[in-house]
Amino acid sequence: MAFINENFLSLKENYLFIDIAKRLEAYRTANPDKTLIRMGIGDVTLPIAPAAVEAMKKGAEEMAHKETFRGYEDSGRGYPFMREAVAGYYKSFGVDIDPDEILISDGAKSDCGNIVDIFGENNTVLITDPAYPVYVDSNVMSGKNILYAASNEENGFAAMPDPNVDCDIIYLCSPNNPTGSVYTKEQLKVWVDYAKSKNAVIIFDSAYEAFIRDETLPRSIFAVDGARECAIEICSLSKTAGFTGMRCGYTVIPNELNAYTADGTAVSVSKIWRRRQGSKFNGVSYPVQCAAAAVFTEDGLRQTRSSIDYYMENARLMAETCDELGISYTGGKNSPYIWLKCPNGMGSWEFFDYLLNEIQVVGTPGEGFGPNGKGWFRLTAFGSHENTAEAMKRLKTLLKK
Amino acid sequence: MAFINENFLSLKENYLFIDIAKRLEAYRTANPDKTLIRMGIGDVTLPIAPAAVEAMKKGAEEMAHKETFRGYEDSGRGYPFMREAVAGYYKSFGVDIDPDEILISDGAKSDCGNIVDIFGENNTVLITDPAYPVYVDSNVMSGKNILYAASNEENGFAAMPDPNVDCDIIYLCSPNNPTGSVYTKEQLKVWVDYAKSKNAVIIFDSAYEAFIRDETLPRSIFAVDGARECAIEICSLSKTAGFTGMRCGYTVIPNELNAYTADGTAVSVSKIWRRRQGSKFNGVSYPVQCAAAAVFTEDGLRQTRSSIDYYMENARLMAETCDELGISYTGGKNSPYIWLKCPNGMGSWEFFDYLLNEIQVVGTPGEGFGPNGKGWFRLTAFGSHENTAEAMKRLKTLLKK
Repeated sequence: MAFINENFLSLKENYLFIDIAKRLEAYRTANPDKTLIRMGIGDVTLPIAPAAVEAMKKGAEEMAHKETFRGYEDSGRGYPFMREAVAGYYKSFGVDIDPDEILISDGAKSDCGNIVDIFGENNTVLITDPAYPVYVDSNVMSGKNILYAASNEENGFAAMPDPNVDCDIIYLCSPNNPTGSVYTKEQLKVWVDYAKSKNAVIIFDSAYEAFIRDETLPRSIFAVDGARECAIEICSLSKTAGFTGMRCGYTVIPNELNAYTADGTAVSVSKIWRRRQGSKFNGVSYPVQCAAAAVFTEDGLRQTRSSIDYYMENARLMAETCDELGISYTGGKNSPYIWLKCPNGMGSWEFFDYLLNEIQVVGTPGEGFGPNGKGWFRLTAFGSHENTAEAMKRLKTLLKK
Repeated sequence: MAFINENFLSLKENYLFIDIAKRLEAYRTANPDKTLIRMGIGDVTLPIAPAAVEAMKKGAEEMAHKETFRGYEDSGRGYPFMREAVAGYYKSFGVDIDPDEILISDGAKSDCGNIVDIFGENNTVLITDPAYPVYVDSNVMSGKNILYAASNEENGFAAMPDPNVDCDIIYLCSPNNPTGSVYTKEQLKVWVDYAKSKNAVIIFDSAYEAFIRDETLPRSIFAVDGARECAIEICSLSKTAGFTGMRCGYTVIPNELNAYTADGTAVSVSKIWRRRQGSKFNGVSYPVQCAAAAVFTEDGLRQTRSSIDYYMENARLMAETCDELGISYTGGKNSPYIWLKCPNGMGSWEFFDYLLNEIQVVGTPGEGFGPNGKGWFRLTAFGSHENTAEAMKRLKTLLKK
């Protein structure tokens, strides 16, 4: 009899986006003449940089000719040209990574979800809360024990470690989804020291690093001393270059990084991850890698930077509006997310309904990202200037009443 | 302390292709003037169909404009146009699949490797031997108990079930890699009845279905009555359309298919797989899906068919050569592989060295695919006509001596 993995039955159904969709549907049915302004979904809206599109077309054309056709990628870890492009990108903000330590993936979500495979069930996992739901769900699926570190108003939604808490694997995301908070180098150093004191591994999600404009803030955990002995970094071109529909990311595993057998023998994490990928992954589409590598050329960087500037102007306006209205928030600087405290003591869902009904603006209730999100709300900067300005105008009128 | 998944340490290092590479390197160093004919690697060599390339370029161009840009794919299970194209393809050989039962992946290897996630550790897995190494490795990684069903000369390298053997999950591949054998409808029906008698799930790898030319042979397990209640089918465009470097495949999970909790409660396999993919996968690149869907258009099918015809002419010549030489083999018809018995009682590696040294032809030692491959040898039809003809000429001269 085929047995299901019963850990899947312990997963909480994530009703968040289903609930949102239902409420929107009901609203639209009752108000067919009203136009909604969507500021809820963490997806980009601007097109791909021309340099990337041209590189993809060229890659596609190469596949049409016997002389330039590419079949299986030998390593499945990414073509050298792509791994070197990522290493060059790291170098541009002062971080040295060997191209051989970089593995190209079809996106941060895949690697972030699959990385749990290589760690035993007997690990205790520490996740900051609120968080991107994949961290929790992938660990529930593989039967691991989960602890939470509270990110809240007191710590600026940037949880710090408690030395009295023991754990083996730690998830950090900075700039944070959903809270927009960014760890300083000093804060990350505390996490690194904590991880090393426990022989723990940090899984560091840097998917939003391209939104960091304050040069004193770290864009990689490897900007911090000691991180090479305790951290994996997972990043993506989804937000850096609008690749949500193109699918390309990268994972950095330093050669020094070890995990342990039950009797304490050190095992290379990189070696085990490569073994996993060697059996369960066959590399990223060649034309997609061509497009991704083009993002890191001079033209590509200039073009993608201009899209990020565009989004950051939205974030600036949202932050300014919150300031004017006296609303507490994190993010909005160095992040495409504004994480705001629902005004007048409203709950997350109450505020969701209030904005929907009164000003037709759609955001995301913070409690969908974990218990510490209760009473908070996420708005994204990925819309158009026009819609963002209109939404902020309506918000001001509504809350100043 | 971060604990490694110790199941990974139980994996046999797969030295097969490393060993081959070493022997080739040594040969080349000693014989720099000799040109090798490679008939070992299961990768295609002909370029992608023009229809697919054009569709990919068009998809890429859409990504360059705000009006046609695509971000995250809502479901991550494949765009409706792609799932409908696959359903139409199934219909063309008489199998009805609802597009909603089709999930688009970045290749058969990913789904084949990841599917183990959704089944508990307490399953006994039955794998025909020899086999594609991913079946064994992915189950070792997840700590499952493995049994083998011997494919051998007596059964034409098409193992059949033993009703006295209990198992929960069964891997079948037809046309088979590496042996080229193809199950008849009657044989598959025996497997389906066996699986149903055990409430087991068959994972059916149909990656080579496009090479079947005998219309009485099933191109899908769903051509067999009862398969919808016991089978998952995993397929790929890698061999169908030369997509080894493009990366697109599909998995079919019928709505009726269940697995069970320890207390015998039925759980929908499709529902659990979607939950897994929802947390660990974000869909296939939009331009890649455009290319893949174009494979199933009239032009695409004609163009890809012509590549398969080309390879099958190689297979025909190889089979003819074996017939002439009185060498036993399977495959060569309805399959791009010839699986031959090493002549004169030679071992797999002995024959490898013999062909390399005497006629500079490179194949794959059968024992690399499992114990029942000992004394057998795989040749592939994916080379050029010229090289294949030359290799067969040399083989005849060598073995007729």
